[in-house]
Amino acid sequence: MAMPLISLLTDFGVRDTYAASLKGIILQICPTARIIDITHLVPPQDVAAGAYLLKTVYRDFPHGTIFLAVVDPGVGSSRHALAIKTPDYIFVGPDNGIFSWIVGEEPLFEARRLDNPKYWRSEVSHTFHGRDIFAPVAAHLARGVPIQLLGPPCTPLVLPSAAIQETPEELIGAVIHIDHFGNAITNITRQALERFAGKGRITVHIKNATIHGTVKTYADGSPGALCALIGSSDFLEVALVEGSAVSAYGISKGDPITVRKTTI
Amino acid sequence: MAMPLISLLTDFGVRDTYAASLKGIILQICPTARIIDITHLVPPQDVAAGAYLLKTVYRDFPHGTIFLAVVDPGVGSSRHALAIKTPDYIFVGPDNGIFSWIVGEEPLFEARRLDNPKYWRSEVSHTFHGRDIFAPVAAHLARGVPIQLLGPPCTPLVLPSAAIQETPEELIGAVIHIDHFGNAITNITRQALERFAGKGRITVHIKNATIHGTVKTYADGSPGALCALIGSSDFLEVALVEGSAVSAYGISKGDPITVRKTTI
Amino acid sequence: MAMPLISLLTDFGVRDTYAASLKGIILQICPTARIIDITHLVPPQDVAAGAYLLKTVYRDFPHGTIFLAVVDPGVGSSRHALAIKTPDYIFVGPDNGIFSWIVGEEPLFEARRLDNPKYWRSEVSHTFHGRDIFAPVAAHLARGVPIQLLGPPCTPLVLPSAAIQETPEELIGAVIHIDHFGNAITNITRQALERFAGKGRITVHIKNATIHGTVKTYADGSPGALCALIGSSDFLEVALVEGSAVSAYGISKGDPITVRKTTI
Repeated sequence: MAMPLISLLTDFGVRDTYAASLKGIILQICPTARIIDITHLVPPQDVAAGAYLLKTVYRDFPHGTIFLAVVDPGVGSSRHALAIKTPDYIFVGPDNGIFSWIVGEEPLFEARRLDNPKYWRSEVSHTFHGRDIFAPVAAHLARGVPIQLLGPPCTPLVLPSAAIQETPEELIGAVIHIDHFGNAITNITRQALERFAGKGRITVHIKNATIHGTVKTYADGSPGALCALIGSSDFLEVALVEGSAVSAYGISKGDPITVRKTTI
Repeated sequence: MAMPLISLLTDFGVRDTYAASLKGIILQICPTARIIDITHLVPPQDVAAGAYLLKTVYRDFPHGTIFLAVVDPGVGSSRHALAIKTPDYIFVGPDNGIFSWIVGEEPLFEARRLDNPKYWRSEVSHTFHGRDIFAPVAAHLARGVPIQLLGPPCTPLVLPSAAIQETPEELIGAVIHIDHFGNAITNITRQALERFAGKGRITVHIKNATIHGTVKTYADGSPGALCALIGSSDFLEVALVEGSAVSAYGISKGDPITVRKTTI
Repeated sequence: MAMPLISLLTDFGVRDTYAASLKGIILQICPTARIIDITHLVPPQDVAAGAYLLKTVYRDFPHGTIFLAVVDPGVGSSRHALAIKTPDYIFVGPDNGIFSWIVGEEPLFEARRLDNPKYWRSEVSHTFHGRDIFAPVAAHLARGVPIQLLGPPCTPLVLPSAAIQETPEELIGAVIHIDHFGNAITNITRQALERFAGKGRITVHIKNATIHGTVKTYADGSPGALCALIGSSDFLEVALVEGSAVSAYGISKGDPITVRKTTI
C-alpha cells in the first residue's frame, strides 16, 4: 500500500501531548503513513468503553487500515501486548479486552503477542507503552512487516459481554454509552430486539419513563418527548427530540433498560 | 487535483466515533482524499452557529476544497440534502440553512439536490445521513463526479439573517458567538460600523458596561478592562484584556449590543 | 522533502475555526504539507504551559518537522515574531518565551526575526498573527525558503525557568502541569532527583500527603493510593492508582512539592 492508513483510538485526552507522541513516532518509522484520529476521549482507563467505540466504527474504514487502540490502565504491569490481523484490518494494543468485539465479530483472525523488541522504540518507559511499543509496532506493520515476526501466537483476552436478560415477557439490558447529543445507547442489538418483539408491540422503560414503541428517526419523535430507536450502530437507544435524554432524565451509564411486550 | 481536500464541520463532538465514520467512508470511496477537521464542536443542532463558523473560515482554504458541513437536527425528516458549487469551492450538507452565508456572499453558485442514490452508501440509515449520504457524495465529488449528476437544480434554504436595527443615533446588534477565549462576537460587521460611525466617536454598550471607542488589537486595551474591536473575521467583538469578557460580565449568546454616537 | 510535516500547538481551542484557518492558509501556500495537531488546548494565553508541552513532544517527531506554536497574548503589541532552526527541526511563533525549553536544550540554533512581509499574508490583521504571519512563514519554510530570508538574526526571549530550591535535606519544586488523567507533573527532573537522592531513600510531600519512595509504573502502586514516579517525559509526577490524584487531593498547578531524604 502506497500510503498506509493508521487510525488512533485512545483515552489520552486532547490537552496533553501523548496522542501527538504516537503520531510523531509513527511518522519517524513510516513517513508515508496517513494518520486519522478516531477519538482520544475514551473515558480514562475505561477499556469496555474503548472496545465499544472501536466496534462502532472500524468497518467504516478502508480495508488495510491499521487500528492503534490504547486504553491501558495496566501499563507497566504483566498484561501482554498484541496485534490481531483479520482478513480486512489489523489491530494493535494492550491485551486487556479492548479488542473483545473484534474477536467476537470476526470469524477469522491471527493474534500475536508483541514480544520482539526489534519493533519497539529503542528505549521503553514503564508508563507509556503507547509511544514505546504500540505506535512503533503499528508503524512497522504499516511498512509491511509481517505480523508473524512480532511474537508468538496468542489468544486475546475477551471481556465478559454485558449480559442481556430475557424472559418471555421482558428483555432487560443496560446503557453502555452516552453520546455527545445526550442519547443513551444500550447493549440491546437490533437482532435481539427483533427476535424478542417479533411483529408485536413493545414498551421501553428507563428511569421513570415509559416509551411506547420505537420510531425510525429522531425527527419522527415529538419535540420534548423521549423516544426509542435503533441507532446508526444497530443498538437500541433512547433520545429526546431537540434535547438531551440523558440530562432530562438523569440517565447514567450502567442504568437498566427494560423492553416489555404489550397488547395496548 | 491529485490529492483533493475535504474539510469537515459538524456538531458530532469528539467523544464518539461519528466524525471518524465520515473519514473512513470518505477514504473508502476516495483513497487519495486529504481530510482536515474544521471543528466537530458546533453547539449540538445549532444550524445558525454552524453557518456562522463556516463563513468565518472557508475563504482561508485552497481553491478546490470540498466542505462537508453536517449540523442536522432534521435528519430522517423531509428536509432535503444538497451540494453547492461556487467558482472556488464545493459545499455538501443538509438543506437547512447551514450554507446561508455562502449563498449570501457568493455571487455565482450552482446548487443541486442530492437525489441520486448512486452516490450514496448502499445502505442508508434513518439517523446518520452524514455517514450514509453526505460523506459519500463529498468523496465522489472529490473523485471528480460532476455536481450535475447528483440531482436536480434547487434553491438553498437561507436562514433569516440576524437583523441589525439602525437609527441615526444607535446601532443595535446581538452576540452571535462566544469564542474559546471568552470574546463575545457580534453580528455588527466592520462595514456596518464604519458606515454608522463615519469619522465620529462611539460608545459600545453591553450588559451594564460602557466601552469608549474601539481599539485595534487586544494588546491596546488595559489589563482587566473591557474593550471593543473589529476581530479577525471583520465583526465587532467585545474582549477583556488578559481575561474572559464573557465570564466577567455574564454575557450570553443572543445578548444585545448597542453602539451609540457620542460627542464626549 | 516531498511532503513536509508541520505540527501545530496553540491555545486556539477546538470550538472555533482559528486552528482551521492556520491549516487552510498553510495548504494554500504549500499544498503538499502534511499537518499534524499536537494540541489546541494549551490553557488560554499561558505561554509557560505551551513551552512545557512543546518540550515534552518535539523530539518524538521526524527530523525536518516544522513546529508552529502560537500562544500569543501579546498579539498586536510590540512583541516580535521569530523562527528558530536547530539541526533537526524548525520552530515558528511569537518571541514571548514559548521556545524557552528549545533554546535551553538545543546546543546549536539559528534564530531570525520575522521582519520580511514577503512571507506574510498580503493583509495582516491586528488580532490574528497566527493566520497572517506565523502560518504563512511556516508554509514558506516548508516549501524550502531559507530561514535567512525571513529577517535579521535575533536572540529568543527565554522565560525564567521555574526554580527548584535545593538544600542538603530538601528538594522543593512545583506542579507545572496537570494531565488528562489527573496526574500532577512537577518541574523536578529525573536528573535533579537522582543527584539529590543518590542511593538513599526519599519521601515526597504534596498537600497533606506523604509518599514513601517512588514506583516504576502506575501499576506498581496500590489501588487508591497516591504514588510518585518519573513519568514518560522524565519529570517527577504524582499519580493516584486507578483515579485522579488531582481531584482526590485538590492539587493545583503551582502547588509546591517537597522531596526529603529519610532513613526510615
